[in-house]
Amino acid sequence: MSSAFPPALTRLIKNLGRLPGVGEKTATRMALQILRWPAPQARELAGSIGELHEKIRLCSRCFTFSQEDPCPICSDSRRDSSIICVVEDPGDLLAIEKAGAFRGRYHVLHGVLSPMDGIGPEQLRISPLLERIGREGVEEVVLATSSTVAGEATATYLSDLLQDRGVRTSRIACGIPMGMDLKYADKMTLQRALAARVSCS
Amino acid sequence: MSSAFPPALTRLIKNLGRLPGVGEKTATRMALQILRWPAPQARELAGSIGELHEKIRLCSRCFTFSQEDPCPICSDSRRDSSIICVVEDPGDLLAIEKAGAFRGRYHVLHGVLSPMDGIGPEQLRISPLLERIGREGVEEVVLATSSTVAGEATATYLSDLLQDRGVRTSRIACGIPMGMDLKYADKMTLQRALAARVSCS
Repeated sequence: MSSAFPPALTRLIKNLGRLPGVGEKTATRMALQILRWPAPQARELAGSIGELHEKIRLCSRCFTFSQEDPCPICSDSRRDSSIICVVEDPGDLLAIEKAGAFRGRYHVLHGVLSPMDGIGPEQLRISPLLERIGREGVEEVVLATSSTVAGEATATYLSDLLQDRGVRTSRIACGIPMGMDLKYADKMTLQRALAARVSCS
Repeated sequence: MSSAFPPALTRLIKNLGRLPGVGEKTATRMALQILRWPAPQARELAGSIGELHEKIRLCSRCFTFSQEDPCPICSDSRRDSSIICVVEDPGDLLAIEKAGAFRGRYHVLHGVLSPMDGIGPEQLRISPLLERIGREGVEEVVLATSSTVAGEATATYLSDLLQDRGVRTSRIACGIPMGMDLKYADKMTLQRALAARVSCS
């Protein structure tokens, strides 16, 4: 970092550079932009970052980020408690909620199995999932981990684990995304989409 | 924004979305990442944003962002005070400083002429530039505004303005960027590069 910038700006650029996908150039652009904002707007951003860790906890049932415990979804009696959707992280939960296609409850693993990184079943929220299944009268578990290698492996592991626990397990469908031109789909996706073809009648 | 996220997270996502080049998806990814950071790291980012407007002012000579007044460049007696490089904003000053190719002083306009947006000479730091030229014994003014339409217009305006003030004016060279394949250069750049060709002897 050049000394042509004042220390307070250099410090901010360094901190912004820790955000995902933000390099030094982007961080510089952001910092200069924040400096051009009215001071209250900058204070508002600072305040919202500062209060984040204080206000947000993990829901003790589904482990999503929440300000209340249990979270609004877990405490909503209109949600179907017989079906649990297992996701990798709270961002995935949000994506499904936005789609509005699921009315059950969730369970957030906070990661996927990745032995190379030292992440085994103990590092994920798997035992609380098994407890919930026994306690909450769950009938179906939807495995909605990503269709990456690690996500697939995690889904397979959970599916095996749940097999003799008296619950149905299912996996979200893999196929061609809506609106995608077929010629741009990768080979694996095409193979899956063909194998999982659905009768039109 | 979906109600599936706690209000503190939603608030942060909204605030991050005001940064340049950050849409809702990127803001969500950033916010979730900040939540995964250790709390002190998040507080450090919040603190550096919070202190920014308090600590940083404009240098009263060159108008760059600075914690001291005059700024370190204006108060550095080793810098050549006979030559002033005029730039649009402090980010451009930083880029030139990083290149290490200029040992004079700077003057930051804080924008370019843009009549459509209501930005005329009075909105830019042009009168203080004229005062400095008289007061500081300036011999040359390098016009280093961008080679955009507005940047070129501003350079032309300043060049005309300075013509009968006893200073030399120059414009940074326009041409093919280093390392660029000629076939990807745009027409205007090629025309300029050819017109401004330099003898090899």
